[in-house]
Amino acid sequence: MRLLEEKICKEGKVYEGNVLKVDSFLNHQMDVDFLCQLGQEFYRLYADCGVNKILTIEASGIGIACLTAQFFHCPVVFAKKSRTLNLSSKLWTSKVHSYTHNTDHDVVVSKKYLGESDRVLIIDDFLANGSALNALIDLCNQSGATVVGAGIVIEKAYQEGGKSLRSKGVRVESLARVVSMDPEKGIKFC
Amino acid sequence: MRLLEEKICKEGKVYEGNVLKVDSFLNHQMDVDFLCQLGQEFYRLYADCGVNKILTIEASGIGIACLTAQFFHCPVVFAKKSRTLNLSSKLWTSKVHSYTHNTDHDVVVSKKYLGESDRVLIIDDFLANGSALNALIDLCNQSGATVVGAGIVIEKAYQEGGKSLRSKGVRVESLARVVSMDPEKGIKFC
Repeated sequence: MRLLEEKICKEGKVYEGNVLKVDSFLNHQMDVDFLCQLGQEFYRLYADCGVNKILTIEASGIGIACLTAQFFHCPVVFAKKSRTLNLSSKLWTSKVHSYTHNTDHDVVVSKKYLGESDRVLIIDDFLANGSALNALIDLCNQSGATVVGAGIVIEKAYQEGGKSLRSKGVRVESLARVVSMDPEKGIKFC
Repeated sequence: MRLLEEKICKEGKVYEGNVLKVDSFLNHQMDVDFLCQLGQEFYRLYADCGVNKILTIEASGIGIACLTAQFFHCPVVFAKKSRTLNLSSKLWTSKVHSYTHNTDHDVVVSKKYLGESDRVLIIDDFLANGSALNALIDLCNQSGATVVGAGIVIEKAYQEGGKSLRSKGVRVESLARVVSMDPEKGIKFC
């Protein structure tokens, strides 16, 4: 999506260690009017898929998920990160590995809000190694919900997450796909 | 707001220990079409106040903040919770006390995204003792931003937070004000 690529080039900052900072519009300050346009694009892509629930993960996925859900007129459920072990029979639970901190944590969704009747679009701000997205898909699979696909704002296409999921048959639509980035040379898109 | 009170009575659950669960529509699953109507009501209340930024706190404030910001056509900034000490000169930092867990944690906002030119509406899902709201106001004061007021979805009006803030001259608009709640007797509003 050209509009998003331009925004990333204009406002994004690349730092050493594979870091792309877009906190002026996406994940600390949120440019809501702009994110609405991304939501509309997700709707265009998935409008005919019978989506009746949007699933995301706290915290930075929630804004874009809510703004997208308006077009589908469906509820959002956000998976909660948990530092403590959850053995409750009332929760679907999966594990996310953080490559940044080299730690694992649980993500949980109440069984009340994810089940067989749900046709789920997963929305998130970033896709890199796919750890969070895999956990969200796992929660859906446990619950019997159908994963219609994923809508990602920025994919780091040089990492394995997107490729691996697509090879398993998961539909992944990323609005911007970064193929390379460098503090000096800037950002290149697919 | 009648519509919200009815929703709380219909879907909310009261548990021992001052717990009101509204996770079917507000803070785990989010009824986005419904929350849009709350956003519109916040807009009606603050439309003529020159709001140019909405401030909230992760995670459950983000959805309602984004849906509200659409009506103001302004960005949202969400304060991040931090478990580690933040001494960065690039951050505004304040402290929130959690009465549930009897712990303190920092909340931080980048100095880039909160400053003197901002006229801030603070949005949050709950107001009880006011600890989170006080921290958000403190961040605004540090930055030189003007706090126009606060928009709260549910206020526990039998706790001190709202009263204390109003007595200091802060405009606090709560869409539902609970005066009492009980697992047996149900929920009563102001």
